[in-house]
Amino acid sequence: MPIYKAPIEDSLFVLNDVLHVERYNNLPGFEDATPDTIEAILGEVGKLAEEVLQPLNEVGDKHGCVWTEGEGFDNTVEVPPGFQEAYDLYSEAGWGSLPFPEEYGGQGLPATLNAAVQEYVSSANMAFGMYPGLTAGAAAALIEHASEEQKQMYVPKMLSGEWSGTMNLTEPHCGTDLGMMRTKAARNDDGTFAISGQKIWISAGEHPMSSNIIHLVLARIEGAPEGVDGISLFICPKFLLDGDGNPGDRNKLSCGSLEHKMGINGNATCVMNYEGATAYLVGEENRGLKAMFVMMNEARLGVGVQGLAQSEVAYQNAADWARERIQGRSISGVKYPDLKADPIIVHPDIRRVLMTIRSFNEAARALVYWTALRSDLHHRSEDEEVRQSANDLMGLLTPVVKGVITDKGFDSTVMAQQVFGGTGYTKDQGVEQFVRDARIAMIYEGANGIQALDLVGRKLPSKGGRAVQAYFKEVGKFCSAHKDDDAMKPYIEPLSKGLADLQAATMWLVQNGVQNPDNAGAASTDYMHLFGLVAFGHMWGMMAKAANDKLADNANGQTKFLENKLLTGKFFMERIMPESSAHLARIQTGCDTMMAMAAEDF
Amino acid sequence: MPIYKAPIEDSLFVLNDVLHVERYNNLPGFEDATPDTIEAILGEVGKLAEEVLQPLNEVGDKHGCVWTEGEGFDNTVEVPPGFQEAYDLYSEAGWGSLPFPEEYGGQGLPATLNAAVQEYVSSANMAFGMYPGLTAGAAAALIEHASEEQKQMYVPKMLSGEWSGTMNLTEPHCGTDLGMMRTKAARNDDGTFAISGQKIWISAGEHPMSSNIIHLVLARIEGAPEGVDGISLFICPKFLLDGDGNPGDRNKLSCGSLEHKMGINGNATCVMNYEGATAYLVGEENRGLKAMFVMMNEARLGVGVQGLAQSEVAYQNAADWARERIQGRSISGVKYPDLKADPIIVHPDIRRVLMTIRSFNEAARALVYWTALRSDLHHRSEDEEVRQSANDLMGLLTPVVKGVITDKGFDSTVMAQQVFGGTGYTKDQGVEQFVRDARIAMIYEGANGIQALDLVGRKLPSKGGRAVQAYFKEVGKFCSAHKDDDAMKPYIEPLSKGLADLQAATMWLVQNGVQNPDNAGAASTDYMHLFGLVAFGHMWGMMAKAANDKLADNANGQTKFLENKLLTGKFFMERIMPESSAHLARIQTGCDTMMAMAAEDF
Repeated sequence: MPIYKAPIEDSLFVLNDVLHVERYNNLPGFEDATPDTIEAILGEVGKLAEEVLQPLNEVGDKHGCVWTEGEGFDNTVEVPPGFQEAYDLYSEAGWGSLPFPEEYGGQGLPATLNAAVQEYVSSANMAFGMYPGLTAGAAAALIEHASEEQKQMYVPKMLSGEWSGTMNLTEPHCGTDLGMMRTKAARNDDGTFAISGQKIWISAGEHPMSSNIIHLVLARIEGAPEGVDGISLFICPKFLLDGDGNPGDRNKLSCGSLEHKMGINGNATCVMNYEGATAYLVGEENRGLKAMFVMMNEARLGVGVQGLAQSEVAYQNAADWARERIQGRSISGVKYPDLKADPIIVHPDIRRVLMTIRSFNEAARALVYWTALRSDLHHRSEDEEVRQSANDLMGLLTPVVKGVITDKGFDSTVMAQQVFGGTGYTKDQGVEQFVRDARIAMIYEGANGIQALDLVGRKLPSKGGRAVQAYFKEVGKFCSAHKDDDAMKPYIEPLSKGLADLQAATMWLVQNGVQNPDNAGAASTDYMHLFGLVAFGHMWGMMAKAANDKLADNANGQTKFLENKLLTGKFFMERIMPESSAHLARIQTGCDTMMAMAAEDF
Repeated sequence: MPIYKAPIEDSLFVLNDVLHVERYNNLPGFEDATPDTIEAILGEVGKLAEEVLQPLNEVGDKHGCVWTEGEGFDNTVEVPPGFQEAYDLYSEAGWGSLPFPEEYGGQGLPATLNAAVQEYVSSANMAFGMYPGLTAGAAAALIEHASEEQKQMYVPKMLSGEWSGTMNLTEPHCGTDLGMMRTKAARNDDGTFAISGQKIWISAGEHPMSSNIIHLVLARIEGAPEGVDGISLFICPKFLLDGDGNPGDRNKLSCGSLEHKMGINGNATCVMNYEGATAYLVGEENRGLKAMFVMMNEARLGVGVQGLAQSEVAYQNAADWARERIQGRSISGVKYPDLKADPIIVHPDIRRVLMTIRSFNEAARALVYWTALRSDLHHRSEDEEVRQSANDLMGLLTPVVKGVITDKGFDSTVMAQQVFGGTGYTKDQGVEQFVRDARIAMIYEGANGIQALDLVGRKLPSKGGRAVQAYFKEVGKFCSAHKDDDAMKPYIEPLSKGLADLQAATMWLVQNGVQNPDNAGAASTDYMHLFGLVAFGHMWGMMAKAANDKLADNANGQTKFLENKLLTGKFFMERIMPESSAHLARIQTGCDTMMAMAAEDF
């Protein structure tokens, strides 16, 4: 039976000691986020995650969701045992409303804090977390783009969990390339639309846990232009609302079947069939894709959190196993003479694996919170310059958070599984589920190759490179400020080297990517991972500084905790940061070799 | 439905043009392995793989094996539909006897050729291939260690497939550390033994496809010394042989249950219970572990082949999908104006992935054959010096073949899955099965961390470093011989750089690993992968030379094939080889940071 303990002390360290969220108490919502409140909130959600959600994780995987054919549109999907009760607890405690504006029933708390909350939920039960997660994504889209009337009608009941939400983008023949979308919206006489078409891979598309499901659907209005400029966004509820705003008539849409997947079996991944379903336009006609993309940064941050979350829970289980499992003796001499063998944590190669995962988890957590704080600053600051700069940085780092954290998070689960040896391959310890669940995060919400292209093709050149220049300046300033501090040397020197590699790669892209865009494509994934190394290194620099400062102060009873932070950061700098030069070397070889072979020869 | 086509042209290129197996026709068995015979044999097994085994791969995954409780010891295990017929075809065609000595019913053909045969079988259906694979492993152990009478009694029927075999090592509390083994062997009055205990993860431990199952079991004879020096090897057949050598009385052993696993569901992974089962000692008392280890090099090569095999089939499917799936347009301009979108193979990042896998597959295939040829030389040469040198190199490269090829082979399946986007996460295209199946190869037959320790702790220092010195000399000589050849520059320069990094790492290990063995442990996995880069680079150097030579000659109608070899090798040198410096940098940081944290703080 897998274990999970919410890493509250680590979260608090980042929020309070590294990011100093209390310094932002001039922002709306932050005034309530005092250290005490934050600790209380994380304690509460930690309890829910550990005691309710985590015990349902294997249940969800084994039981899965069950589709049953029904009359007319009433095909049903049964969720795993216990999910309904967990959903009710989650909703009643208000976890679905935490970062949303109070005017729509939200609590107005920082997105930064919500990132921590979502990490715990996702570590405990990723498939479960996707139900409220999709609702939050749909609610965010409505808050950003819907009319005031629509918002009042839908959002409060979504935030309370009474209703849930989904996002319908993909069709069988189009995923990344939404311009080829075929789902049609016909105009009804009353100003509503009738949607017809098939959407696939709709997470939480059908389930009995909420009394209505608000589908957000992308479709093409009759006569709209070809391509991405002819796509509109619609609200298409499972039950149409009656005059009192309550679920009334059944809408003409149904779940045609469930996908059979590698993992996240507890979540219902649906084929959705729309057969003249009544729908309401959100925002302007033909601007649907743009509307979706505006809120995609937040959704992608959420997927990055999933990558971190699976890595964290996999780490905890592997560390636990490594302490318990006795096998062989330390090569540097017996360490536990009273036992028949040493616990495998004595072996350097096991520690290398654990430290690799741990040094990733802590940096990824800091980076997620740091990026979420940019989102809060962007949405809540009154200073236009602060808002713009925060938005630039959030946009720049989003593909890094999504792409790198889900890639590396998956690698972590595989490494953690390896610590278990043969047991890790069986279903006995639950660790192989982490691998299967984590795998999806690299794919959905824009496959990681698309994240890399978004970074080099869109975010880098945007506004003359304003965002990336600001980012380099910030990291460079950090290095300059601490380069003469002996205690910071083990962190600053490798970070400076990584930054120099990233700057060289950026320069190479500027010189070669414009002349031949395939050079940019050929460099994209390596560039994204090189960027990730620097971003993690920057976080480790900040964490080392905070740990050193606190140790020099009174450590607040955390001496060991802080010393371990410094050790973990040092490991990152010694063992992970050196990858930067390999990325740079690869980038600089360009696209010629990979583009030379004929398609039919592959 | 996944596809598979046996890569016969690639195999022939390595066997004939790179390794020139015809030059070894003075060795027994090689005189029969003419280019024509090799091509005919590969064509035959390719047909079996493509037409019979591959279509059963998904069936095996979905159906799995079914355990049913029976009377007494007669619990039964049902294999997936079609497996019995496939097993009969495989056996009747003689694939189980190919590399074994003719005196025991084998065909005496080279192990080098058998490696190609096993690659195709494993690409098509890894779970199926394990049934005859385990029989081959058990037969090899008997040929090496059993008495002449035992060999005549068991081996011919195993090689014909009439009987099958298993290896029983692991117990619940001991996998890597076999010294803790508890299974007991009591002496019977007639010189036989009675075995009692439980073994787990016994592949092919019970199934109905053969009329007897010959279990090789490690157990401790009453009164034997503690630890690894008290373990003996036994033959323990499911049915005891009657006076005519035919299966007679049911032995007191049974399959207690099947493991629930992440993958290879078509193979029966059994818990085996021995309850006073009659058994026959193989070789000397208390020398069982040693006997097992002697034949482990070959078994580990076989697992390396599985890593290559899954990578190859995953590649073929990803390449096929990338040519067919249209989505988006090339960033350097529309390439297929007649289509609604370009096939995704136009995108450099997709090509980067495909070329990464392809450049690995081709190098891994060459390395497997090269190493298998050392095994043939070791077993078949009449020249003592040749035998010894071949054995040194085979021993040195075996952990590299097993550890690196299964690690990278798994990575390949994950990358191939990514090419499919969301489809790759569903069970629709069969590609997620490759990921789940490939995962086990990193774990069994010695987890890859153990392979790395075997390399740095055992193979490197053995006999004063004789093997590694000989290897460096061979690769160095290759570099020197071709360094002035302009056509070879793109291969020789990166290979020389990689070799220099590997030599520097080796020197570091010599200086620091002896003084503190934890430094060797901390370096082991990076060292193994650095070794793998050089070994692959060496293979690419040899393949490039062969391709250049053949192109300069008359190319034999293979101009495009050979040019693509050169391109693929160039990609490897540009994009994969640069990792060597990151490995070296990591190795040189030593063990201090990772050993510093207290076990309870992980």
